[in-house]
Amino acid sequence: MPDDFERMWAELAPIGRSAGSGGYFRQPFTAAEQELRAWFDEQAAARDLRVEEDPFGNAVAWWEPGPGGLSRLLVGSHLDSVLDGGAYDGPLGVVSSFAALDRLRARGVVPTRPVGVAAFVEEEGSRFGLACLGSRLATGATTWAVARELRDRDGTAFGDVVAGGVSDLLDGVGCYVELHVEQGRDLVDRGRAIGVASRIWPHGRYRVDIAGTANHAGTTRMEDRRDPMLTYAMTALAANKQARVTGQRATFGRLETSPNSTNSVPSAVTAWLDVRAETDAHLADLVATITRQAEERAERDGTTLTVTAESVSGATEFDADLAARIAADHAEGDWPVIATQAGHDAGILSARGFPSAMLFVRNPTGVSHSPAEHAEVADCLAGVDALAETIERLAT
Amino acid sequence: MPDDFERMWAELAPIGRSAGSGGYFRQPFTAAEQELRAWFDEQAAARDLRVEEDPFGNAVAWWEPGPGGLSRLLVGSHLDSVLDGGAYDGPLGVVSSFAALDRLRARGVVPTRPVGVAAFVEEEGSRFGLACLGSRLATGATTWAVARELRDRDGTAFGDVVAGGVSDLLDGVGCYVELHVEQGRDLVDRGRAIGVASRIWPHGRYRVDIAGTANHAGTTRMEDRRDPMLTYAMTALAANKQARVTGQRATFGRLETSPNSTNSVPSAVTAWLDVRAETDAHLADLVATITRQAEERAERDGTTLTVTAESVSGATEFDADLAARIAADHAEGDWPVIATQAGHDAGILSARGFPSAMLFVRNPTGVSHSPAEHAEVADCLAGVDALAETIERLAT
Repeated sequence: MPDDFERMWAELAPIGRSAGSGGYFRQPFTAAEQELRAWFDEQAAARDLRVEEDPFGNAVAWWEPGPGGLSRLLVGSHLDSVLDGGAYDGPLGVVSSFAALDRLRARGVVPTRPVGVAAFVEEEGSRFGLACLGSRLATGATTWAVARELRDRDGTAFGDVVAGGVSDLLDGVGCYVELHVEQGRDLVDRGRAIGVASRIWPHGRYRVDIAGTANHAGTTRMEDRRDPMLTYAMTALAANKQARVTGQRATFGRLETSPNSTNSVPSAVTAWLDVRAETDAHLADLVATITRQAEERAERDGTTLTVTAESVSGATEFDADLAARIAADHAEGDWPVIATQAGHDAGILSARGFPSAMLFVRNPTGVSHSPAEHAEVADCLAGVDALAETIERLAT
Repeated sequence: MPDDFERMWAELAPIGRSAGSGGYFRQPFTAAEQELRAWFDEQAAARDLRVEEDPFGNAVAWWEPGPGGLSRLLVGSHLDSVLDGGAYDGPLGVVSSFAALDRLRARGVVPTRPVGVAAFVEEEGSRFGLACLGSRLATGATTWAVARELRDRDGTAFGDVVAGGVSDLLDGVGCYVELHVEQGRDLVDRGRAIGVASRIWPHGRYRVDIAGTANHAGTTRMEDRRDPMLTYAMTALAANKQARVTGQRATFGRLETSPNSTNSVPSAVTAWLDVRAETDAHLADLVATITRQAEERAERDGTTLTVTAESVSGATEFDADLAARIAADHAEGDWPVIATQAGHDAGILSARGFPSAMLFVRNPTGVSHSPAEHAEVADCLAGVDALAETIERLAT
């Protein structure tokens, strides 16, 4: 008994939502995310889809009306959110996938190959620090030996919350299509509701550890201090300025101060630098420039600084033929093919040899990773239609 | 059966000490601080001192050999520490007080007025945010109605951990002398082991709330951001620079970032500014200059900024006649009378009309509020002698 898009959307709205900010806290293997997973199983059951799970927490609900044997088409996205994130980043792709299946069935379309709705785990890396963890494990981009040691902020290891082992979830998958709310204003500027991804910018996350000397905030002369907060502050301003003048992106959104005491000069500051750039060379240049400026300031402050790459992903070029095939010949004309600066499971699958594509749904403000993230209902419904059309093109 | 200084010092050494940093975590009403309080009671019992407690957690161990009636002399300090602090700040004054009483008794000195060893609670403000909370309550500088609502970082109210009410602990006290490790290098520069306080600089703590807009760290163009981290970073550098050029002190040691997510532009940064200055006018000028520069940057960043004074203490001028009486005519010459930039319970008592004085013990590096805080044993023993001499001058 399939629900329509709006009814499914309303069901998800309260899960993991903060009454204070209106944002979502849907970290993997928390109560909120487990509730979303239970909802996923219910939706699959209501549509007679067979749910397959791998030992990392990834899941696919399969629609297998035909005889099998042909390569499989996967659609879907993820259910987890960043801390205090929006409703759309992730769940929009999963809900739209179920709704697209409903439309195809209502029209009597029967795919010749199996079609699966995927929900990849820990796409945001908000809990264990490595973005696209689920798809990395399912494709072998990250090994279980590495992943099991990843720890959340409370010290819990990823190996303690999932069984681990080997995933065969993507066996036989010939193509993956992920629908996602746009995170930017490209479609708004073009006046279009739907777009197709061309490429993903390279992306790196770096931990910046700055050590100084704790001391009394009142009695220690300014010239006697070795204050890591000053080194950090200059680094944050330098990162912003370098990204601005080069047209790239650099952000410090996470910070830990020790001992974090009002009346002490801190002993250490650890900050996480998120960098995106048009090309791998631009990324390396930007990080090198920021690091050099930070090191110069550290010398002035008498602090020590180390920069550790926690994850670096090169540029993803999606399959151009696949994108063209999806984008061409629609009632409203060809859908625009556009780049994104955000990482996605589709980028991981693409890099690991699965032909992949993405559909973007217009975001009126471009705001994402924020309680203010939004898409108009009409655009979401256009997204469902676009995904149904795409499935029909690729799986029949 | 009185212990000597070194034996008492060794007993306290392991309590609340972090194996990682070697620093101390002795926050009020935690297990570590309660262990120190139990030790305080044992020391009092071993010396037949009567322990009196007030409903805020302050305690005094009274030595009352005479007939009473005369005004009382209080010595002592506090047992709590800043987060990851040193061993000396606080406990040195309490341990030295017991040791000084032992020396007087060994010499057969009998005071004509009651002498009490005080341990004031939450001197550092490390848990409930208001420094000298215990002495403020005991002297009426802060009311119970205000104090009961103060909350720690876990949301526990001060009113939930103490009974509260009215304190008569300081009734009849005519004078307070606090011995403390020096937090600075004045005595080192002078080549002296012991000093007497002349004054405490004015001190303010300010909460700086900066609000921006959460957004995606990859897709949001630098020029479209309203990033509170940038406003904060410029404010931290401006505070340092202004304090440096004016010879005052300004520190950002505590910071909270929301949502504290690596791949999000933060929605808000809250930081605490600690300022000390030679005079009230210098303090006000310095805070005004930092605030103006922060507001200018906030306007540029599209963020909003509010600065809230959480506590501001004017200059404390200790009783000059009392300081001169304590400092004059010693075997090694007069003790130097020096200023300090650190707040103390003695400053609160002085401001509330109790004639008060402080003895400082040389600190070879000046480092305090840090695991590296130190004083040589010989200087600590000179401190015990100095405190015993002072008690003899004031109470016999």
